[in-house]
Amino acid sequence: MLITSVSNPHIKYAVRLRESRQRRRDHCFLVDGVRETTRAFVSGYKFREVYVLPEEERQASRHFNDLNALLIRLREKNVTVFETSSAVAEKIAFGNRHEGIVALVEEPQHTLDALASRLPECPLIGIIEGIEKPGNTGAVYRSADGAGLDAMILAAPETDLYNPNAIRASLGTIFHMPTAIASTAETLDWLKRHEIQVAAALCDHAAPYQDYDYRQPTAIALGCEADGLSERWRDQAYREFIHPVRLPMLGIADSLNISNAAAVLFYHARFVR
Amino acid sequence: MLITSVSNPHIKYAVRLRESRQRRRDHCFLVDGVRETTRAFVSGYKFREVYVLPEEERQASRHFNDLNALLIRLREKNVTVFETSSAVAEKIAFGNRHEGIVALVEEPQHTLDALASRLPECPLIGIIEGIEKPGNTGAVYRSADGAGLDAMILAAPETDLYNPNAIRASLGTIFHMPTAIASTAETLDWLKRHEIQVAAALCDHAAPYQDYDYRQPTAIALGCEADGLSERWRDQAYREFIHPVRLPMLGIADSLNISNAAAVLFYHARFVR
Repeated sequence: MLITSVSNPHIKYAVRLRESRQRRRDHCFLVDGVRETTRAFVSGYKFREVYVLPEEERQASRHFNDLNALLIRLREKNVTVFETSSAVAEKIAFGNRHEGIVALVEEPQHTLDALASRLPECPLIGIIEGIEKPGNTGAVYRSADGAGLDAMILAAPETDLYNPNAIRASLGTIFHMPTAIASTAETLDWLKRHEIQVAAALCDHAAPYQDYDYRQPTAIALGCEADGLSERWRDQAYREFIHPVRLPMLGIADSLNISNAAAVLFYHARFVR
Repeated sequence: MLITSVSNPHIKYAVRLRESRQRRRDHCFLVDGVRETTRAFVSGYKFREVYVLPEEERQASRHFNDLNALLIRLREKNVTVFETSSAVAEKIAFGNRHEGIVALVEEPQHTLDALASRLPECPLIGIIEGIEKPGNTGAVYRSADGAGLDAMILAAPETDLYNPNAIRASLGTIFHMPTAIASTAETLDWLKRHEIQVAAALCDHAAPYQDYDYRQPTAIALGCEADGLSERWRDQAYREFIHPVRLPMLGIADSLNISNAAAVLFYHARFVR
């Protein structure tokens, strides 16, 4: 099926999903690119439909073989595949290049309860609270994936997980990482109930990060770009399982950016102790 | 002195310095923002002139006190300070907001020879080769600053150090960090001559990064976003002092982004061993 009009209702709807409000309302989103789309597919995300360039134009892409392999698997699952003209492809692409495929995908539920059943006995979890920039969310996921974290929790996020910049910066690792999205209060209660210790990146009165023993069930919590973790993480009620840690700052700046801080902590916790 | 015309020759020249070609030709560049400008000033950079908003508009800025303190010090050094109208300020600002001050600053020389005299006995140095995105260069500097590295070397950079995105992502730490810029061949010869061991981020045949002993004089080398370090780092002639290290990748992606990889290695080398 070839779509040549940007007024086609499928295309008009896809374009609307570039807005976070529409994504939140309908619990679905777009994925761009062969690598990212493949990662969403193999991670079990449910695809509603996909839009690809016609075959002769796909052949020009350096991802031609990967894309064709993906299309075979999508058709096996009875996913509707639309071919689109270049003008239509441009219309639905994120940024200024169409990477051969855009997929319309359903957002799964991301509850803490569902997450609990997917964790190993001694989990290592990453938590980011109140993140505003989708690129930072994605970059944190890329490091969490590399360090082999067992899960990520987004506490009170200020950007949605399926923002195209988050997907891109994550290289699609967002789809592979078990994830829960919850308020900070829910997150803290869940951690306490599951007896997971928290290494919380808090500058004040904190021990250097390398003094903490990450071999117990541990969540590493980092706060938003401007202000760090919120006051709730200092609440006396949680004192026994929240352990403030800090990254030493030996230079003139007073913090690392969030994705660099996360990378240091995740890799240290997994590969050093 | 108040400048109200965007055709003023000072302003026309400042605008041209937003282009890297002009910066390369004239060895000077612009710095935006109170924090960044202050860091350039206290680090000994030579200021040609600065452009600020008129005092009543400066008072509206949340950096008013810091900016006034800086202006006093600039005038003590006989730096010419121009006040500009809002329209002129907008014209020379980077991006869409004028942060109260833009400074025209001279680029110092960044030779390996000059760097050698500034190093401690057992230095820890960061090297990034062939970096293309200025934001990545700046983010690496921010981590290098936090970890207290003794110097940075830019080997065969594909972007200039004083690109406004590099300055911004670094939070101005670029100005404080001793830096050399050189070809890869020059860098390797210099390292060999100064008996500095290299922990080189090379995926193939490399030992995990945490097995290396960073307590000897060490440079940590990372390659460009797409391809990593060039073939020169595998040259047999340098085999004795280049030690391939790798970051374990336990997930589905095959690399970290450059600034996250740098943060992990810099912090591990400085604070773990």
